Amino acid sequence: MLRLSQLYTRTRKEVSEADPSRNAQLLTKAGFVSRLMAGAYTFQPLGLRVLHKIEQIIREEMDAVGANEVLMPALQPRDVWDATGRWDNVDVLFKLKGAGDRDLCLGPTHEEVVTPLVTQYIHSYRDLPQAVYQIQTKFRNEARAKSGLLRGREFRMKDMYSFHATLSDLDVFYERATTAYHRVYERLGIGDRTLLTYASGGMFSKYSHEFQTLTEYGEDTVYRIPGTKAAINKEIIGDQDALAGIIPGYKPGMEKEFEEVRAIEVGNIFKLSTRFSDAIGAKYMDEQGKPQSIFMGCYGIGPSRILGTIVEVLADDKGLIWPEAVAPYRLHVVSLVREAAELAASEPIVKQLQAAGLEVLWDDRVGFSAGEKFKDADLIGCPHRIVISAKTLAAGQVEYKARQDETAEMLTVEALLGRLSA
Amino acid sequence: MLRLSQLYTRTRKEVSEADPSRNAQLLTKAGFVSRLMAGAYTFQPLGLRVLHKIEQIIREEMDAVGANEVLMPALQPRDVWDATGRWDNVDVLFKLKGAGDRDLCLGPTHEEVVTPLVTQYIHSYRDLPQAVYQIQTKFRNEARAKSGLLRGREFRMKDMYSFHATLSDLDVFYERATTAYHRVYERLGIGDRTLLTYASGGMFSKYSHEFQTLTEYGEDTVYRIPGTKAAINKEIIGDQDALAGIIPGYKPGMEKEFEEVRAIEVGNIFKLSTRFSDAIGAKYMDEQGKPQSIFMGCYGIGPSRILGTIVEVLADDKGLIWPEAVAPYRLHVVSLVREAAELAASEPIVKQLQAAGLEVLWDDRVGFSAGEKFKDADLIGCPHRIVISAKTLAAGQVEYKARQDETAEMLTVEALLGRLSA
Repeated sequence: MLRLSQLYTRTRKEVSEADPSRNAQLLTKAGFVSRLMAGAYTFQPLGLRVLHKIEQIIREEMDAVGANEVLMPALQPRDVWDATGRWDNVDVLFKLKGAGDRDLCLGPTHEEVVTPLVTQYIHSYRDLPQAVYQIQTKFRNEARAKSGLLRGREFRMKDMYSFHATLSDLDVFYERATTAYHRVYERLGIGDRTLLTYASGGMFSKYSHEFQTLTEYGEDTVYRIPGTKAAINKEIIGDQDALAGIIPGYKPGMEKEFEEVRAIEVGNIFKLSTRFSDAIGAKYMDEQGKPQSIFMGCYGIGPSRILGTIVEVLADDKGLIWPEAVAPYRLHVVSLVREAAELAASEPIVKQLQAAGLEVLWDDRVGFSAGEKFKDADLIGCPHRIVISAKTLAAGQVEYKARQDETAEMLTVEALLGRLSA
Repeated sequence: MLRLSQLYTRTRKEVSEADPSRNAQLLTKAGFVSRLMAGAYTFQPLGLRVLHKIEQIIREEMDAVGANEVLMPALQPRDVWDATGRWDNVDVLFKLKGAGDRDLCLGPTHEEVVTPLVTQYIHSYRDLPQAVYQIQTKFRNEARAKSGLLRGREFRMKDMYSFHATLSDLDVFYERATTAYHRVYERLGIGDRTLLTYASGGMFSKYSHEFQTLTEYGEDTVYRIPGTKAAINKEIIGDQDALAGIIPGYKPGMEKEFEEVRAIEVGNIFKLSTRFSDAIGAKYMDEQGKPQSIFMGCYGIGPSRILGTIVEVLADDKGLIWPEAVAPYRLHVVSLVREAAELAASEPIVKQLQAAGLEVLWDDRVGFSAGEKFKDADLIGCPHRIVISAKTLAAGQVEYKARQDETAEMLTVEALLGRLSA
């Protein structure tokens, strides 16, 4: 339980226009983030709770596919990037000098570190497959960063990497990872509008996949395959050979009928094949004792970007709206009081709700009108709200409203608990 | 529960001498960390579990003093560092260029960011006091980094900052923070050997305080005040005026009798006074409506350094020894089997232990001798170990040994559970 009187942030009516994105504007007004500079935000207490919940859901699903969690350094030495030929080719790389004038960079991705890290333990086919992941702060020196949490110079990332003896074993794990990703979006409350989207595979493989969440505020355009929860991205919608490989019963030109929709990319998965293991010289011994290349996959999802996406998708003109699983608190309790002594009447109810296991944000502030408190509750966006006032206390009830309801209703505390546990 | 067969790391007999520190050598052998370069380590799955437990204990104690948790960016713009005059004066600052040739640094500490962050919400004396903290990856461009987790170029840090209307209010909070720090070290299992140590206050105040954990492997020298759990550090042991202010009944020269001991600094707390709020121009309005300076304190503790310290303090010649509260798993279960089918006999016992709420690391590997498995258990250092073998199964018991015991004893599972819940 958090008392609003003990939270140091406040809601704001107006915020700087320096970052015009809808997610940054709303999150700043509600006190969830604070902008330090373009692309770099502080997570304030309410925002950090949401971020931690998103990360925990992702962690549980990565654990469920049997991946081991690690935490790699953000600082990386130049030599591993030279080995893969990417030191000069990744234009968003933040470069800096370490002690002894050593060239370092800040990791925007970790293939260069994870490949030697994991393959030091891989000697034979018996040591495969393996998968590791981390949830970490990453850095990209973006030329422009005007999209709030959707495009950060510093951002949170879950990156998983898998290692396999054969391409077919990679294919099997890739399918399991895809299923795990769908479960993550379901649990985050955006599963119904998140499409598996075919994208170009770059130099490593035929296709990669993006997960694209539909919203009119999206920066990407994708083309929905009718009757499915899949889409084609802009890179390959014009490539009829590619489309023939993806869509069963494809007929040239049918893509012209596909619905064009706006979306935000909330994850991407790649088959890296042997691109990095070969560059780094990581091999395993097969059953005949012959050295063989290790196949790899990588699987990315950005918790801070997802936080911004949830805002873009679900917020309304009154403020934020959080899905149950990631809300900073599930229940917002508004005590309408003129002086501090009157709070004592609310306290047994708050304690009872807390004892029932509910996460409660208690607006115990004195000197705020009902209108101000209701506006703050709508802006902060907990999924459920109750009001405790002299009137509700006299009736032995509380006044309940879900965040998206227009009108409130009177309930006993027992009835409220029944409803929220359902 | 983690099966060792599903952990991708292995123990090693020998590791590189590139980092000769005892903590790095043991943690690398046991598979808890892996060195990427000097001062930058990957936390492997077992090490990350310990790190997360240390961080959670610190989080709980900071929450208990009423501080709000936030997460600030590591990237910081030059202008805030110019405002405090520290851009050119902090020699460990990693500097880099962002988009548009903008000067940035990686935060080794966050006064420059937290002061405007918090004071944007501080208008009057009614808005004080406040305290915020974060648990974050920090960066220091150390000239030398040969001490493993004790001196990282990239490391984990909890930094708390407090804001007050008066020096006396800062003093009150500073005492509460000191008590919270002692509780942290108690819970981490190093409380009995951690001394509150008086250090110079730098330019901001008379003294600051370090928390120093006694160990012969320590890099610092401190002077223990007889009959107390306090000490004086090297900076001020020669300053008789300072000593007179610290030690009740001080007589000049008595410090020559103080025991000189080796220790590792595991925390430090400072009264910053108005050093940063004045530089940044942060004021509050007092009861008369006059602008006044805001007093600040800062409170640091490094979870990754503490992890290394626990190793230096507690490990023996067989390997790591973890205190109950931060062990990666409390119980290491060794199944002695010649083939996988024999594991079935262990499984009901492992399930029963798990159902009782015990965190179990299960050595279910096939093809390892009893000697190899026992060596690994000692190296990994879970506080409790049981063996399940044909012999123990026939007796309807398990063979139990605490990590530091010389000999094992036979116990029923019920007796084991009773002992571990005590």
